[in-house]
Amino acid sequence: MTWVEGAVGSPYGVTNLPYGATDSGLWVRIGDRALDLAAAEQRGLVDAGGALRRSALDTHLAQGPAAWRAVRDRLTELLTGPSYRRDVEPLLWPVEELVLRLPFTVADYVDFYSSEHHASNVGQMFRPGQPALPPNWKHLPIAYHGRSGTVVVSGTDVVRPCGQRKPADAETPVYGPSTRLDMEAEVGFVVGVPSAQGERVPADRFAAHVFGVVLVNDWSARDIQAWEYQPLGPFLGKSFATSVAAWVTPLAALADAWVPAPAQNPPVLPYLQTADRRGLDLRLSIEWNGTVVSRPPFAGMYWTPAQQLAHLTVNGASLRTGDLFASGTVSGPARAETGCFLELTWGGREPVTLADGTSRAFLADGDTVTIRAMAPGSGGTTIALGEVSGTIRPAARSG
Amino acid sequence: MTWVEGAVGSPYGVTNLPYGATDSGLWVRIGDRALDLAAAEQRGLVDAGGALRRSALDTHLAQGPAAWRAVRDRLTELLTGPSYRRDVEPLLWPVEELVLRLPFTVADYVDFYSSEHHASNVGQMFRPGQPALPPNWKHLPIAYHGRSGTVVVSGTDVVRPCGQRKPADAETPVYGPSTRLDMEAEVGFVVGVPSAQGERVPADRFAAHVFGVVLVNDWSARDIQAWEYQPLGPFLGKSFATSVAAWVTPLAALADAWVPAPAQNPPVLPYLQTADRRGLDLRLSIEWNGTVVSRPPFAGMYWTPAQQLAHLTVNGASLRTGDLFASGTVSGPARAETGCFLELTWGGREPVTLADGTSRAFLADGDTVTIRAMAPGSGGTTIALGEVSGTIRPAARSG
Repeated sequence: MTWVEGAVGSPYGVTNLPYGATDSGLWVRIGDRALDLAAAEQRGLVDAGGALRRSALDTHLAQGPAAWRAVRDRLTELLTGPSYRRDVEPLLWPVEELVLRLPFTVADYVDFYSSEHHASNVGQMFRPGQPALPPNWKHLPIAYHGRSGTVVVSGTDVVRPCGQRKPADAETPVYGPSTRLDMEAEVGFVVGVPSAQGERVPADRFAAHVFGVVLVNDWSARDIQAWEYQPLGPFLGKSFATSVAAWVTPLAALADAWVPAPAQNPPVLPYLQTADRRGLDLRLSIEWNGTVVSRPPFAGMYWTPAQQLAHLTVNGASLRTGDLFASGTVSGPARAETGCFLELTWGGREPVTLADGTSRAFLADGDTVTIRAMAPGSGGTTIALGEVSGTIRPAARSG
Repeated sequence: MTWVEGAVGSPYGVTNLPYGATDSGLWVRIGDRALDLAAAEQRGLVDAGGALRRSALDTHLAQGPAAWRAVRDRLTELLTGPSYRRDVEPLLWPVEELVLRLPFTVADYVDFYSSEHHASNVGQMFRPGQPALPPNWKHLPIAYHGRSGTVVVSGTDVVRPCGQRKPADAETPVYGPSTRLDMEAEVGFVVGVPSAQGERVPADRFAAHVFGVVLVNDWSARDIQAWEYQPLGPFLGKSFATSVAAWVTPLAALADAWVPAPAQNPPVLPYLQTADRRGLDLRLSIEWNGTVVSRPPFAGMYWTPAQQLAHLTVNGASLRTGDLFASGTVSGPARAETGCFLELTWGGREPVTLADGTSRAFLADGDTVTIRAMAPGSGGTTIALGEVSGTIRPAARSG
């Protein structure tokens, strides 16, 4: 049990311990407070070879599972052992006083498309009259590369993008601010240990490379995307901003959150097979200006994170520290479990009503979206993933 | 006129002066030699605030056009003024002794699709029975994000990728080494000066942000690509490796290479219009095991680099130092001007014969591809872009 005041029973209890970063250094969260890891390492309370005295997790990420475990075990010791309280308590700061930045440097950002419900819903809306799932969908976890330079930390405002869209009744495209601005609730996996170019990383090496999890909001301008995306995929409809949580939850905190993944039929190729197909029982919620509009269940994703990693590298593509691969929109079978507003409002045709009585189909300027998630922690606890939140600012005036 | 022996009349004469990097620092090429810029700055022969004493161009790239011009002017002075010869000549090394590395850290890698001939040829092969060009093609320069972590420097071997492909007569996909391994000859633009997220970079600000040019070989596994690319675009078919030249040619060296770009019809939206639509008169050649098999002309590209930059940022996506955006495959109208082997051999159905008498449809293990380019330099000179070369290694055994 932790000696930190208010942390017992908190979803950020001692079984959680996510990492964050400010310009001054790294932090580990406990309850409503965070431990200054640079100071802790400086004073010899924890030793990661200096990796905790950086302004991003990158160095620690690259150290690999043994170091990850050693640091976490030591932090648990410091935050539970009464004898450490005198030295450690002065290094705890209120979380609300921290100006959190991106917790790691994003190397390559890959976005999967692994919810069968999402892919099927989007297929019906984007390609009416064709089969809801493309013919390859159940044979491989479809993905594309996103723009890593526009990944921003939770709390960063998002400027409504401008671009081309082609109204259904128009001959030619028009230019202007997106009129169908959407979000996508996703779970992102943070790579720590790199791999060599030309060699694949099998699914069973997942835990040797992946450090942890962040919630992701993959903002999407549906009108821009619909016009641009064939034949080479989404580009400007996505590249203006992707938000990630400020706190990275280590996989070690989610050891009790693994659950069997849905059966796959047809059977997949051997490189995508694992002895133990597991998903994570993360229960997401999406708040639109404070109203919970959906509760997407991550456990039902068709493709697991280990399969995604195996696919991503099967062609010999190397991993770098800081690679981020996201699950794709997390949607369950029910309307109130969908992970984006395109699905929630069925292409904008069925608006939702928020708590303030206003109605929404897509995002309005000034709207705030917050994605949260809870998961089983060890010892019967419930833990929270760091939330990802963002507010829409009006489009920039054309220069 | 330069005093460097053998450099007068060389395609790497004093009007060229491309930059490269080794682990020990930066270099500028002149003839068959290269000047050690770290040593030159150390000795006070040139001053870039320490930016030349790095193992990559990144710091100098971020300094912007005034610094780029000042350094280039000073290097020209050092390499032409006879009085500098005594101090500078000892800092010249034979180019063949340098172990060149990636000249800059690739931030985001974007690949366009801007040759009408290429898009039309590929459309006919990938989507038979449909219009050769997608409906959006003449309204916007189509692009997607590639994997920046697998961009490698010229001379790096490329391991044949494995992955899924679906033979036309099969019910389900099979796994194995790519059997249709291809290359794509492209021209890449290297961003120096970053931009703010949420603000667009108009086409007329091209020269304020873009530092120079590298030749690019965007290796492509056509069988993997064909099966995976719908609906989200190319992924594993491209992400195993992209090769770039070891020498970055500054745009300043190409000031006389601008030529009018092809007329655009239908007219494009205002953000894609420029007073002066210009392409670069780069004359590429592709060597397959030493046999020149094609001579793609870059001047005929439908979308110009300035339009590509304006499109890439119109949604507010920020630029970072080291962003690389490539033109897409450079293909002219004639078969002997196509920029990839898919087009050159028309989907593999019309193999080419190399100088050694062997026949090829796609790349065999051990094959080497080298892309070169010549361009008009200032004062009536002809300059060479640094070549990009790579050799195919057999697929890794499955683990």
